[in-house]
Amino acid sequence: MSEKNLLGRRNFIKGFGAAAGVALAAPAMAVSEKADGVKWDKEVEVMIIGSGFAGLAAAIESVRQGAKDVHMFEKMSYFGGNSAINGGLYAAPGTPMQKTEGVKDSVDRMVADQVKAGRGVADEALLRHVAEHAVEGLQLTLDAGSEYHPYLQQLGGHSVARTYQTTVSCGAGITQPLYKECKRLGVKAHNRSKFEGFLVGKNGEIEGVKMRQNYHFGEDQPGEVLNIRAKRGVIMATGGFGQNVDLRMAQDPTLTAEVGCTNAPGATGEGMYEMFRLGAIPVHLAHIQSGPWASPDEGGFGYVSNYTIFNFPHSMAVHRLTGKRFMNEIADRKTRADAELSCRDEKGEAMPPLLITSYKHSKKHPNTKKVLKYDVGWKFDSVEALAKHFDVPLKPLKEQIAEYNSYVKSGDDKQFGKNMTKAKGKYIEAPFTVVRLWPKVHYCQGGVQINVKAEVKDSFTGKSIPKLYAAGEVTGGVHGVSRLGSCSIPECIVMGMTAARSVMKA
Amino acid sequence: MSEKNLLGRRNFIKGFGAAAGVALAAPAMAVSEKADGVKWDKEVEVMIIGSGFAGLAAAIESVRQGAKDVHMFEKMSYFGGNSAINGGLYAAPGTPMQKTEGVKDSVDRMVADQVKAGRGVADEALLRHVAEHAVEGLQLTLDAGSEYHPYLQQLGGHSVARTYQTTVSCGAGITQPLYKECKRLGVKAHNRSKFEGFLVGKNGEIEGVKMRQNYHFGEDQPGEVLNIRAKRGVIMATGGFGQNVDLRMAQDPTLTAEVGCTNAPGATGEGMYEMFRLGAIPVHLAHIQSGPWASPDEGGFGYVSNYTIFNFPHSMAVHRLTGKRFMNEIADRKTRADAELSCRDEKGEAMPPLLITSYKHSKKHPNTKKVLKYDVGWKFDSVEALAKHFDVPLKPLKEQIAEYNSYVKSGDDKQFGKNMTKAKGKYIEAPFTVVRLWPKVHYCQGGVQINVKAEVKDSFTGKSIPKLYAAGEVTGGVHGVSRLGSCSIPECIVMGMTAARSVMKA
Repeated sequence: MSEKNLLGRRNFIKGFGAAAGVALAAPAMAVSEKADGVKWDKEVEVMIIGSGFAGLAAAIESVRQGAKDVHMFEKMSYFGGNSAINGGLYAAPGTPMQKTEGVKDSVDRMVADQVKAGRGVADEALLRHVAEHAVEGLQLTLDAGSEYHPYLQQLGGHSVARTYQTTVSCGAGITQPLYKECKRLGVKAHNRSKFEGFLVGKNGEIEGVKMRQNYHFGEDQPGEVLNIRAKRGVIMATGGFGQNVDLRMAQDPTLTAEVGCTNAPGATGEGMYEMFRLGAIPVHLAHIQSGPWASPDEGGFGYVSNYTIFNFPHSMAVHRLTGKRFMNEIADRKTRADAELSCRDEKGEAMPPLLITSYKHSKKHPNTKKVLKYDVGWKFDSVEALAKHFDVPLKPLKEQIAEYNSYVKSGDDKQFGKNMTKAKGKYIEAPFTVVRLWPKVHYCQGGVQINVKAEVKDSFTGKSIPKLYAAGEVTGGVHGVSRLGSCSIPECIVMGMTAARSVMKA
Repeated sequence: MSEKNLLGRRNFIKGFGAAAGVALAAPAMAVSEKADGVKWDKEVEVMIIGSGFAGLAAAIESVRQGAKDVHMFEKMSYFGGNSAINGGLYAAPGTPMQKTEGVKDSVDRMVADQVKAGRGVADEALLRHVAEHAVEGLQLTLDAGSEYHPYLQQLGGHSVARTYQTTVSCGAGITQPLYKECKRLGVKAHNRSKFEGFLVGKNGEIEGVKMRQNYHFGEDQPGEVLNIRAKRGVIMATGGFGQNVDLRMAQDPTLTAEVGCTNAPGATGEGMYEMFRLGAIPVHLAHIQSGPWASPDEGGFGYVSNYTIFNFPHSMAVHRLTGKRFMNEIADRKTRADAELSCRDEKGEAMPPLLITSYKHSKKHPNTKKVLKYDVGWKFDSVEALAKHFDVPLKPLKEQIAEYNSYVKSGDDKQFGKNMTKAKGKYIEAPFTVVRLWPKVHYCQGGVQINVKAEVKDSFTGKSIPKLYAAGEVTGGVHGVSRLGSCSIPECIVMGMTAARSVMKA
């Protein structure tokens, strides 16, 4: 369990710093061109770029709205994008399961939770639009065949339990059914197809795009570029830029290549940058979210993330050097990530804190077996064994466990004000399961500004760029400073559907 | 003293919200064009766009580096931009006045203060470059004839006194001498000239720009557009976007038209947006700084701002409803602005706090007379009169004054850890001068990413855009989340000089 390579907080860039994680071959001049005189190689009705939650929902909804010729382009060899490897968590207010479990919730309440996490600068109109259509979006996934655990979760920053999770505890539990539904509906899905810029008409409208065929991600010899016309318009669902080290370091020099990232490798942001070249407004690029549920002992999202998301409500996080709690285990993501990053020794070296859970409660989550099997989590029969293994001071740790258990009993966390509802009766008792925590780059709150029609605004004219729509992580401002967990999938699904409705109305 | 129109924090935008403060007439498609086949109306050696600190310094340094034909373009009728109305405060480490006053300082110390205020995401390489050349930049202003008060100030967030201020307590004390020096050196300065986009060569290099002549800001019938070639390159010194309400609300929906702004009206950001259309990387646009030294009782920067900047070290800020202090009066700008914004009644209405100073100390600043004359500050002969006027509870206020004065005596602020060095012997005693405080939009930390050569990076290639340079508030990332006061002028002057050296070397 080496502490190496966790991160060098404030590992300063000199000049422009390190090269991008993925080299991007592109000319220096704006990539988009005027469509005037362009020879079109192909024509489609609705063009969708990206095949994650937003792209898939846009494709399905386009067909539902009457489109006959919908094309979805994906630069990677596989479909599903970064969505396919996310946690599969879907928050919605007023769901059937909330009724079953007796949870009182509303659009207002969900929006208020998100505005709070967004530190006052979230776009409330967009949050409300998504919350109002979240149940409808959930239904779209159910109709396509997605399956969810038969219980709700209350994730950090949410004031009530409102989160569904796929039975496979992964976004693929949504992207795969949606992809199948797309195929069933006749959507043409093209992989290895890389967006290379817009073709812009006389009035600034998006007439089509340049699309590289037979593209092999990260390789040097990509294929031919076709000019493809999009009769109704283009929906950009190209995702975030968490894997583009150079671009994320431009926003935060501490997010070096050594900092872990949960995203799929294709999350490199060139779709977003191309929209800026058109005149789209960059919003909140500086707000990059690190997931506080990640483990330094495995790559990417791994097994631990979903394990901890499930277990945080009835677990106790402690600082290794003190044996004491240091945060509300279900505070919003930014609050927790900042608290974890502050767990260091006197030299400033990272000391990943421990999440301690009673084995009898943790084992209810399917990932617990894998966490133990792959040595990214450990089981201890006594607090003494736990303390010895991690070199935690025993006496303070014992006292902390006793104190925490008193809050489980009283329902009142006097240390950090944690909502103890979901911890009821779940005392911290041997045997324990323990994982280590350290944040990883997870989500880009920033992107292009859109409105509730998924239209993209031009910075000069203040008007929407004709025939251009954007949905999902490529857009910015929706969540403000910090996105709440399980709020990305509803956003992607709802805004993808919204973009489809707009493109079919235009 | 109405509380009206102070601000509606969380005055949500619906859809895209209000129109821009200033209407921008421009086409929807990218404004920049390929230079191929362009008919050039004019050719210059070095082209500088903008005439604030950065533009003026770039012009002077270009001539010093051997340029024979330097042209500076300004869209407004007057030269100096927003710089002409700023506070005229210049921070530098290792100055002659620090030697005289016995202040120990260094580049490392100034950079460390700024990194702290920047919340860890400032570009340390740029901060260091500026700090290393800050004395040289100060000398450039002195050579041109700028005059400074014969004492140093210690501004909020600075760990030592290192700030010069012009004798006129205004940036015009620098822009006017620099402008005269430009004229003396033969720089051609053009007003009413509006930048309308780049003309881009075959390899992505900036060959020239489109420049509107006889432009009248805010009016409908602007003049002819010339294609002007820039042989060596273009230096963009076009400033921030604090006055563009629509664009600032895209980053922070609470910064509505009702929120005050200290900037000159021309600070609308179109130069920055045009660089994004070329492929420049947007950094930290979300970080918009509000000045905590402003008054709700006057427009813009007004008289109070410089009065409070001078007086904060030996003054006491109190909440009107409690009579108690609520912040360290010399914390960094963001810390103080956030603290002031939290001063509200139980309904959430703004309750601008009071800055209380002994008249015998405040009167040393030349603005004190004006503050009293124009009724944006008030003088009271007793604490009773003060409390009655503002309806502050008397007893708690008296206790707070006594407590604060005990910290003046001990040098140890037990309430907020304020550095009491500059408060030594300066007790809060009648008669008092009092002003009200409320933050105003002041500075955009965000802009285009540059390196220590003032080159602008392309988001796709990762390389600098040939023959393009940027300096001053139009650039982003230098200061991180929050800029320290008096650090903008050295940045503008040094990066303007740096851009000139780069353009003459290229």
